[in-house]
Amino acid sequence: MSYFDNNATTALGHNALSSYEGALLEDWSNPSSPYRTGSRVRAKIEQAREELAGFFSFKRDQIIFTSGATEANNAIFAHFSKGLGLKGSCLVSPFEHPSVIDSAKYWFDQKIIYMPTDGKGLVNLNETSSILEKEKISLVSLMAANNETGVLQPWQELAEVCSRNGVYFHCDATQWVGKLDTSGLSNCGSFSASAHKFCGPKGVGWLATKAPVKMQLGGAQEFGLRGGTENYPAIASMMAAFKDAQDRISEVNSRALWRDEFDKGIVAGIPNSQILGSGKKRLWNTSMVLLPDYENLRWVGKLDKLGFEVSTGSACSVGKEQGSGIANHYGLTAGQGRRLVRVSSYFEHSQSDWENLLSAFCLAYKELRSDSVNSSVLSL
Amino acid sequence: MSYFDNNATTALGHNALSSYEGALLEDWSNPSSPYRTGSRVRAKIEQAREELAGFFSFKRDQIIFTSGATEANNAIFAHFSKGLGLKGSCLVSPFEHPSVIDSAKYWFDQKIIYMPTDGKGLVNLNETSSILEKEKISLVSLMAANNETGVLQPWQELAEVCSRNGVYFHCDATQWVGKLDTSGLSNCGSFSASAHKFCGPKGVGWLATKAPVKMQLGGAQEFGLRGGTENYPAIASMMAAFKDAQDRISEVNSRALWRDEFDKGIVAGIPNSQILGSGKKRLWNTSMVLLPDYENLRWVGKLDKLGFEVSTGSACSVGKEQGSGIANHYGLTAGQGRRLVRVSSYFEHSQSDWENLLSAFCLAYKELRSDSVNSSVLSL
Repeated sequence: MSYFDNNATTALGHNALSSYEGALLEDWSNPSSPYRTGSRVRAKIEQAREELAGFFSFKRDQIIFTSGATEANNAIFAHFSKGLGLKGSCLVSPFEHPSVIDSAKYWFDQKIIYMPTDGKGLVNLNETSSILEKEKISLVSLMAANNETGVLQPWQELAEVCSRNGVYFHCDATQWVGKLDTSGLSNCGSFSASAHKFCGPKGVGWLATKAPVKMQLGGAQEFGLRGGTENYPAIASMMAAFKDAQDRISEVNSRALWRDEFDKGIVAGIPNSQILGSGKKRLWNTSMVLLPDYENLRWVGKLDKLGFEVSTGSACSVGKEQGSGIANHYGLTAGQGRRLVRVSSYFEHSQSDWENLLSAFCLAYKELRSDSVNSSVLSL
Repeated sequence: MSYFDNNATTALGHNALSSYEGALLEDWSNPSSPYRTGSRVRAKIEQAREELAGFFSFKRDQIIFTSGATEANNAIFAHFSKGLGLKGSCLVSPFEHPSVIDSAKYWFDQKIIYMPTDGKGLVNLNETSSILEKEKISLVSLMAANNETGVLQPWQELAEVCSRNGVYFHCDATQWVGKLDTSGLSNCGSFSASAHKFCGPKGVGWLATKAPVKMQLGGAQEFGLRGGTENYPAIASMMAAFKDAQDRISEVNSRALWRDEFDKGIVAGIPNSQILGSGKKRLWNTSMVLLPDYENLRWVGKLDKLGFEVSTGSACSVGKEQGSGIANHYGLTAGQGRRLVRVSSYFEHSQSDWENLLSAFCLAYKELRSDSVNSSVLSL
């Protein structure tokens, strides 16, 4: 199978797997335990923490290992809504991941302001900045890159505006970390990341945070911010994956060209198809295709049989009545929303993988049309 | 090394490791994804859930996979303190795990009532039941087995009393599941369990709950109660460990005898030593030794060099100023609290492992006395 759903999750990398296996066998002691193997695991966790802190220019006690980005995003909203004496609203983009949007709704109740956008997947920085000057805002949260279209948001600029206005800025960097240069993240109040988006394991990630955000009570682990036994084997695996991803960040410009060729081929080969976010700065690996005909699950099924795994949008939106967040944002009809197919590559893909994916889309289209004609004939 | 700190964490079991590796390689797709490998992972997660639900006589939508017991315990207290219109206190034992005690303090603020005890590690059922009849209580939480002494608490009986009084009963069963027969847990409103206490991996556990406890917002995963990508590889590993543990539950009575022999040997071999909770029903694997001399970290260090890993108490209490929860509860002096050493076995230990551990304690005592004499001589 050719897997093109890396924004949903990634296969565990080779080094991430061997690091995982090694730590599961050798470094499984509880790092809070007082004997030597416990101390060794403690030292390794702290080394991992210092590596991340150094890399992102955060302090070491600002790197909190979590079960993933959803936990991290939840914790930020819980923290800023209670016990701080802040009375302001939160300001979020309308197409944040559900772990941000749902946390904003729950913890800030009616006090949510949505960032103005261009109606096509991009936050309007100037209008958003004006809101910061007019309204009382306790927390600003903007994703770095949209999980569905891949459109890059003006988070670096907004982080600076927030800094000037003394407002806390959180960045859900889940889709950015492991795909693009991260140097601007040091200017954020906090950002979240998830290992399984960059060929690390599921169930682990981090919150880098300048605010002391309590995540789990009970135990002095993670500077008292997240009680519970640390999952060092998963952290070891994540670190291996993170390093592998960083080693390849320089390749992304050429890889973006392969995706661009795919986009052109789709628009040329499938009449009336569109690429959402085309023409904007996007993640190099993502393409959100609005197809002219046939529901997306039929496309997914057909492509699956042809050996290509693609998605209908955010996996975390599956089962939600409102469907894909980005479909609502674009003002698509319900029918159009059901014709969205997302493809997302990662570093293992070659140019020919993209070319084969394009061919598969064109073949799927042909077969879907043929199925359709046959079923029309049968229904006569 | 002979590892006697299984109440802190366990080594990953053989089947748990191979299940983990298999799932990391084969079943890593996002279970919310719409293609066949995603559906296959979805089916496997739901099969695991149904197995646990059937085993514990809960409904399948009452089994919520979590990152561990700390998350589960936190969520119960958050749920019952807010948004439910309940105005009562919570009722907890004074020696709950920090993830329960700290959650109670945070979410119920001043409205905590501590269960009366015998002052020696055991909750007094009758007096606790009286409180339920006199006070307005929103939530009762009692651990099944104490993590430090291993003393079994009257949770089955208290669950019934709560049921009669219409009060929700939560049981932190972290130290019980994987060690003893679990049939009574079906009578609890909820219970938490953690895989790494029974030779499963870290970072995974479950909350079995009859109340719809929200854990993480964002995404329809886990019936909308816990958003975020499910960690199926860890769940697969946990299930393998759980089955292996269940297969050996019948062995525990004979294993308790080995521990009892160890206890007798300690008291006989080390004058003025005590076993906390001795004479009470305890976990078959645990012994909390109060030693007559030398700080516990010296004992731990000496035993470590002799090839035995033991602990000073709950790993989650390390770094807390108040030290071991059970030391405070027993009314021990600060000095006594620093002379507690906990040993905890698991199914891999043989009778001779316990015998060797006893010999190591006696040798350690001899060496510590000798060190002490020598240092006195040196200081002359």
